Amino acid sequence: MTVTLEDIQSAADLIRHAVVRTPTCLSRSLSAIAHTNLFLKLETFQLTGSFKERGALVKLKQLTPKEAAAGVIAMSAGNHAQGVAYHAQRLGIPATIVMPKGTPYIKVQRTASFGARVVLEGDGLEAASAFAHEMAIQEGLTFVHPFDDYDVIRGQGTIALEMLADCPDLDVLIIPIGGGGLISGMAIAAKSLKPTIKIIGVQTEMCPSMYQLRYGQAPTLTGQTIAEGIAVKHPGKLTRKLIDQYVDDIVLVSEASLETAVQLIAAEGHIVAEGAGAAPLAAVLSYPERFTNQQAGLVICGGNIDARILSSILMRGLMRSQRIVYLRVQMPDIPGMLATVASIVGAAGANIIEVQHQRLFTDISIKQTHLDLVIEVRDPEQVHQIVNQIQAHGFPARLLDAIGSK
Amino acid sequence: MTVTLEDIQSAADLIRHAVVRTPTCLSRSLSAIAHTNLFLKLETFQLTGSFKERGALVKLKQLTPKEAAAGVIAMSAGNHAQGVAYHAQRLGIPATIVMPKGTPYIKVQRTASFGARVVLEGDGLEAASAFAHEMAIQEGLTFVHPFDDYDVIRGQGTIALEMLADCPDLDVLIIPIGGGGLISGMAIAAKSLKPTIKIIGVQTEMCPSMYQLRYGQAPTLTGQTIAEGIAVKHPGKLTRKLIDQYVDDIVLVSEASLETAVQLIAAEGHIVAEGAGAAPLAAVLSYPERFTNQQAGLVICGGNIDARILSSILMRGLMRSQRIVYLRVQMPDIPGMLATVASIVGAAGANIIEVQHQRLFTDISIKQTHLDLVIEVRDPEQVHQIVNQIQAHGFPARLLDAIGSK
Repeated sequence: MTVTLEDIQSAADLIRHAVVRTPTCLSRSLSAIAHTNLFLKLETFQLTGSFKERGALVKLKQLTPKEAAAGVIAMSAGNHAQGVAYHAQRLGIPATIVMPKGTPYIKVQRTASFGARVVLEGDGLEAASAFAHEMAIQEGLTFVHPFDDYDVIRGQGTIALEMLADCPDLDVLIIPIGGGGLISGMAIAAKSLKPTIKIIGVQTEMCPSMYQLRYGQAPTLTGQTIAEGIAVKHPGKLTRKLIDQYVDDIVLVSEASLETAVQLIAAEGHIVAEGAGAAPLAAVLSYPERFTNQQAGLVICGGNIDARILSSILMRGLMRSQRIVYLRVQMPDIPGMLATVASIVGAAGANIIEVQHQRLFTDISIKQTHLDLVIEVRDPEQVHQIVNQIQAHGFPARLLDAIGSK
Repeated sequence: MTVTLEDIQSAADLIRHAVVRTPTCLSRSLSAIAHTNLFLKLETFQLTGSFKERGALVKLKQLTPKEAAAGVIAMSAGNHAQGVAYHAQRLGIPATIVMPKGTPYIKVQRTASFGARVVLEGDGLEAASAFAHEMAIQEGLTFVHPFDDYDVIRGQGTIALEMLADCPDLDVLIIPIGGGGLISGMAIAAKSLKPTIKIIGVQTEMCPSMYQLRYGQAPTLTGQTIAEGIAVKHPGKLTRKLIDQYVDDIVLVSEASLETAVQLIAAEGHIVAEGAGAAPLAAVLSYPERFTNQQAGLVICGGNIDARILSSILMRGLMRSQRIVYLRVQMPDIPGMLATVASIVGAAGANIIEVQHQRLFTDISIKQTHLDLVIEVRDPEQVHQIVNQIQAHGFPARLLDAIGSK
């Protein structure tokens, strides 16, 4: 089985008006950071926050009336679940979504809000998938695979048609790889329209499954990642064949670079991306020599990031750039001392955001205390001025680093 | 002096390719929340993160060679400063930016990074402005006003041309008002192209200066707002006249609604907006009856929000929706008790993110302790199950609300 440009163009007709025609925006701020022109394809604007709707809708539109009446089933703890559930509801097709036990409530609730029957079963994705396949047979439901499916690949490929229509000058497309449905469809469309365009896939070091298959490496154990959307242990067979044929290279990115990419896309690009959605920017930042002075198209494939994780990433970004510092002051445990230190910090124009005394776990004199301050400062230079001024009052003071060891 | 459609169209020619032609995107997720179709104009994609570049660039392009050689001066602690500095540098025009003392370093540094001379002077915007006007005269510099200027108004008006080109069916434009430059330019362009379109301005209750002028109310003291970009005490004279003529209505929004709007645009719309940028969504959510079943164009005028503020807004959003709760448990102060409570929470699938013992400020028995937990839960129903299970172990347990008083 193969997929052609015409298959993808006809898929575009099938989903028109039912899926958002998302924009491809030049981000001048991120381009300035990366020293190359970055065009962001904002799949975050889909109703369910990711590109998954495209492939799911094409698959649903190809069902026979009998299949549609019987209903569909899918297994997903994330974006695919919502994509299938939403469009099945629109088309009046009964949908069952199997999710592993322990799936966050917000994902269960969003999927159920589209009228799907949600079944929580299996300890992990593999067990849930096996259960869903079994249930499909028993109940006569059509299984909607998240990536290894002809129609799903056609649907995801429509993103490349839109990007090249909006920005015909793109030199390279940088595309996240999980199971491989997104990149294989896009690569076929893009290479057919513009044979000189380069297609680069991105995986996280924590789950380099397609990378290892392509480059003949033994599979390794997978680890925790903020890019859950591309943490697929067993990529597709069909997608693997297409990737071998159409994708120029796959690069791996570290978890630290993914976190930085999420932070920069939010703080500088003003876009909320999930880990997988930020992976293309992580690739550009990790391999700058490969992308310099190009017109690079980055597929920001989804924006469904946990609000608490995003909140922490923003704060850690401030910490890394020394806009928030942790200062430990040793001082006499007598009235007025906190006021003295707080006055120095305040007069310097820095903002104290946390205060704590440590009298117990310390080896200093019982007549002394450690005062730990978290301070928001203007710049690293200001920190040193504050430290020097506190020391000039006779109080030993030092900055603690991320793990409090300095 | 007046401003015509032709003035704005010629301004569009002046800024083409130098300012990002930003997209107008249907946000299906926010539309579903607001029960109306919301089209977001993403001025957050400008290099300096706001629309201010447009008016600044038009003004700079109108200078005589002699004026350009002498240089320009502007007063701003925010987006106007960066807009002027960036385009002055591009055009080789010397720029001086006066900022009030105490302006956050990040804003000083960004403005200076565009090659501008930054002068920190004056306690507050009024004093800084007076100083800048004085300096303009003394040094022979052209003052670039942030809003009350013919060319600046022409430049901001180009946003309406783009929105109506992209979405001719828009019924209403909802536009933040600070000094009034953005809305007056846009209103002239939009009403000239489509006389039936409604133009609604938005101000914060904390600084309702233009609203009070329009509706004959006495000016009130202004307060703290997260929408600094529209906190202008003295709106323009020219802009006021144009607003009276072309703007249908001005609405006020509360600080709480602004915070909710920033949170929803980020969490559901996947866009980072500053307070002023989120003001149009706050208006739609505050006055739902006015905007139901319409095609509404929202000008997301800027994305320059402090990362710490955004981080806090995301966490407070989780708190308000009871996805994060504060639980106080009273238990015997003996080994194993924390493990018992933690096991109940863990088995329920909820995540403990903070733990604290309170033994001192409490009136319970010295043999007992308060255990305070911050827990991330799946849904409010789960909270009550956890509380009930802890109580079934004989430990009094209750939720504390936002101010710890319940």
